[in-house]
Amino acid sequence: MSHDMSEPGWSPQGPVLELSDQASWDLLASKNFGHLALSNVGRPDIFPVNYYCDKETILFRTASGSKLQGLTENSHVAFEVDAETPDNIWSVVAQGPATVLNDARLVPRQALEILPDWVPVEAFVYISITPQIIRGRLFERDLPIRRV
Amino acid sequence: MSHDMSEPGWSPQGPVLELSDQASWDLLASKNFGHLALSNVGRPDIFPVNYYCDKETILFRTASGSKLQGLTENSHVAFEVDAETPDNIWSVVAQGPATVLNDARLVPRQALEILPDWVPVEAFVYISITPQIIRGRLFERDLPIRRV
Repeated sequence: MSHDMSEPGWSPQGPVLELSDQASWDLLASKNFGHLALSNVGRPDIFPVNYYCDKETILFRTASGSKLQGLTENSHVAFEVDAETPDNIWSVVAQGPATVLNDARLVPRQALEILPDWVPVEAFVYISITPQIIRGRLFERDLPIRRV
Repeated sequence: MSHDMSEPGWSPQGPVLELSDQASWDLLASKNFGHLALSNVGRPDIFPVNYYCDKETILFRTASGSKLQGLTENSHVAFEVDAETPDNIWSVVAQGPATVLNDARLVPRQALEILPDWVPVEAFVYISITPQIIRGRLFERDLPIRRV
């Protein structure tokens, strides 16, 4: 049976539900491990990072002067988080510019609790992503995205 | 205590072991769920995908004519897989060009077994990534990358 791809409610991966912005933010804020994608002169790269999300911005930490700081500073990035639940699999992607948070006093206490201790102690910076686009999708349980 | 970031064996996230190419391929081939990063006119995007890896290329499937096909075709992409084990957390990133596999007969049988049935049945294409760079890292267990 052929399927009309323009029909809403389906994705290349199968049945899918597009989530509201609020539901997408709620899911982002419920986790603290995600994947950061960025591009350096047309060469994409991807990093697993711990993060904190206050439902408006996404905050993560990296070593001061590191490659990751250089690549994210004032860059447009994509940040993705997904998880399995007993009923479905969800994925939220947020896209927008990343900037270094120069005043560490602006880092909320909850972020300090979630972002783990620095091991070993060394200089680091906080980087804040302010998404301009957020998109959340909920995949039905029989969907091909599965983990082994 | 300050830490010399030029010292090998440490990363911004803490103690880290750089893996050999072979060990990285072995880890890539041991899973079938990862994250694909690509960039469209300087705007990175990220997609969770099921994949098959034969330790030389990475194969995934997408709907024919989809946004993902358009963005990956003849593009340089990054593909990342990570997992937790009782002792550590590992992450492997492979970077290289992605091309559409025009002859489906070239898709190995093992890939057909791993890549799940299409739901619903619709036209799809196989996309093959041929990494030029592969990098694997093993993080010690007390490392800040943790999941909630």
